[in-house]
Amino acid sequence: MSQKGSTILSLKELGNIFASNLEDFSFPTGVPSLYNPLDYIMSLSGKRIRPLLLMGAYNLFKEDVAYSFEAGLCVEFFHNFSLLHDDIMDDADIRRGQPSVHVKYDTNSAILSGDVMLVYAYKLLEKYKASVFPLLQVFNKTCVEVCEGQRWDMDFECQSEVAIEDYLKMIEYKTSVLIAAALKMGAIIGEASIDDQNHLYEFGKNLGIAFQIQDDYLDTFGEKAKVGKRIGGDILQKKKTYLYLKSLLLLNQEQTDRLKYLFSVQDEVTEDSLIEEVKDLYNKAHVGIHSDELKLVYHQLALSHLKAISVSEDKKKTLYDITDYLLNRSK
Amino acid sequence: MSQKGSTILSLKELGNIFASNLEDFSFPTGVPSLYNPLDYIMSLSGKRIRPLLLMGAYNLFKEDVAYSFEAGLCVEFFHNFSLLHDDIMDDADIRRGQPSVHVKYDTNSAILSGDVMLVYAYKLLEKYKASVFPLLQVFNKTCVEVCEGQRWDMDFECQSEVAIEDYLKMIEYKTSVLIAAALKMGAIIGEASIDDQNHLYEFGKNLGIAFQIQDDYLDTFGEKAKVGKRIGGDILQKKKTYLYLKSLLLLNQEQTDRLKYLFSVQDEVTEDSLIEEVKDLYNKAHVGIHSDELKLVYHQLALSHLKAISVSEDKKKTLYDITDYLLNRSK
Repeated sequence: MSQKGSTILSLKELGNIFASNLEDFSFPTGVPSLYNPLDYIMSLSGKRIRPLLLMGAYNLFKEDVAYSFEAGLCVEFFHNFSLLHDDIMDDADIRRGQPSVHVKYDTNSAILSGDVMLVYAYKLLEKYKASVFPLLQVFNKTCVEVCEGQRWDMDFECQSEVAIEDYLKMIEYKTSVLIAAALKMGAIIGEASIDDQNHLYEFGKNLGIAFQIQDDYLDTFGEKAKVGKRIGGDILQKKKTYLYLKSLLLLNQEQTDRLKYLFSVQDEVTEDSLIEEVKDLYNKAHVGIHSDELKLVYHQLALSHLKAISVSEDKKKTLYDITDYLLNRSK
Repeated sequence: MSQKGSTILSLKELGNIFASNLEDFSFPTGVPSLYNPLDYIMSLSGKRIRPLLLMGAYNLFKEDVAYSFEAGLCVEFFHNFSLLHDDIMDDADIRRGQPSVHVKYDTNSAILSGDVMLVYAYKLLEKYKASVFPLLQVFNKTCVEVCEGQRWDMDFECQSEVAIEDYLKMIEYKTSVLIAAALKMGAIIGEASIDDQNHLYEFGKNLGIAFQIQDDYLDTFGEKAKVGKRIGGDILQKKKTYLYLKSLLLLNQEQTDRLKYLFSVQDEVTEDSLIEEVKDLYNKAHVGIHSDELKLVYHQLALSHLKAISVSEDKKKTLYDITDYLLNRSK
């Protein structure tokens, strides 16, 4: 018998439901060359943040969490589709510690299997006949924005000047709106009010921005063991992150010129000394403090929207837990 | 005032409605690097067969043809999305006589702009709130099949043996199902009966297969001025078309060995002499007669389904006209 409060599943329980349902899902067997790359990318797992948030949002309003699995898988498929194509565009050979799809298979396979993965994301929405229209609306809008975000990210690489607000808009589109949409889609399936749908969307959007600001910080200043990838990757790729853009505003002329110079030349210094010198300039700008402050702004905005959702606070425990998990992983 | 029969628009009138509505459509202006490649591919025009069929199918049941424009644009966007990505995969530098998108821009642009074009195809379905669920079902199924068809086409290139039935399944998926889906989507929006929806689907499927068989024939035996591209392209690409596969069954051992040999070697003979020798073998197999017979089988199947649709024959005139236009262009 369920007791008061027992209807809210923990992060771990949501993860178990997602994992066990995913085991029962399979692509058609007729065209292995099309679907094997998708089994491969899905086997690399990842944190499943988006489906967990979607299922957690649904669970605020309904108990039969497994009903929201297909919508969770929809956003996870979209996320993985975008990784497949982004890794080609970014020439990224490693994904989750393993060869990227276009390396393990080939570029054409990554393009075409990515395409069909996006279609499968849409196909999974067919389960929700009654709410398919609002789901399609938010999902379409989000998919467009993610593509626009990726385009901005690519364009910024060739631009000498990028405004911090444009950078924030880029990470909002490239990363945050899918997290926001996942939460809203869970709310739609859970038949939440429009107000609650919107608060969950804003919670996710701000959570995603805070997470990305932290992610950029850890890419340069984190510990490899915790971050799970090479430290300094953004510097080597000359990514115009918040750390870089804010430092340009904080450093003196000589330092600014040097930082710009280091981001404009190829192979002038060794990778290690490039990372060290840029980190040193970032430290001189005390940009870590600003990064932390900005993260906190978005973190608090996220929490204010989570708080505003019209269900009791104890029901929100899992969403608070995910927030803590996502925004404190270096602490 | 409309007179009896005047409610059915001609092919030309449908084309005018599509063209004038397309002029009013525009992508967002905020991210030109994402949307310019899409304006470019759409400006190359093409025959607009799929939207015309969709609008023609809708017009069997309703008069306000412009209402079906967005659904027509949806299938046209999907078609163009698949061209963008196929041209990368097939390394095809020319599209409709102009540089392909990945040549005019770059491969990453063609991937990402193609992705967002697919999303826009889905977005256009939002207009049809009442019938969005069945539209989504047929569109999803079709998009999956088109990807599977493209994958088979790629796989067949590396396979030494391809069965004719597998080849026919490949062209059904790669080409015909989108034509079929366009007609069915027009019928769905037109609130046609399920029977009529299915007859329109089967009409389109068989029309598409007949068209592709003819297209393969014309690629080798057509006149350049009418076909609009270099004659013999399939032979140069060593495409295992119906002409090739059927010839292998009809020629004697020595001829069969020679044909297989010509398709297995690179740069052994000049392009022109390769085309001439393969054409000569095809002629010895009288494969043109078989190709014509097979096209006729599908043509008649298509007509039988068009006939079975429960509206008066005079209303079907435009669909008969499109059929004649598509299947007699060499005559």
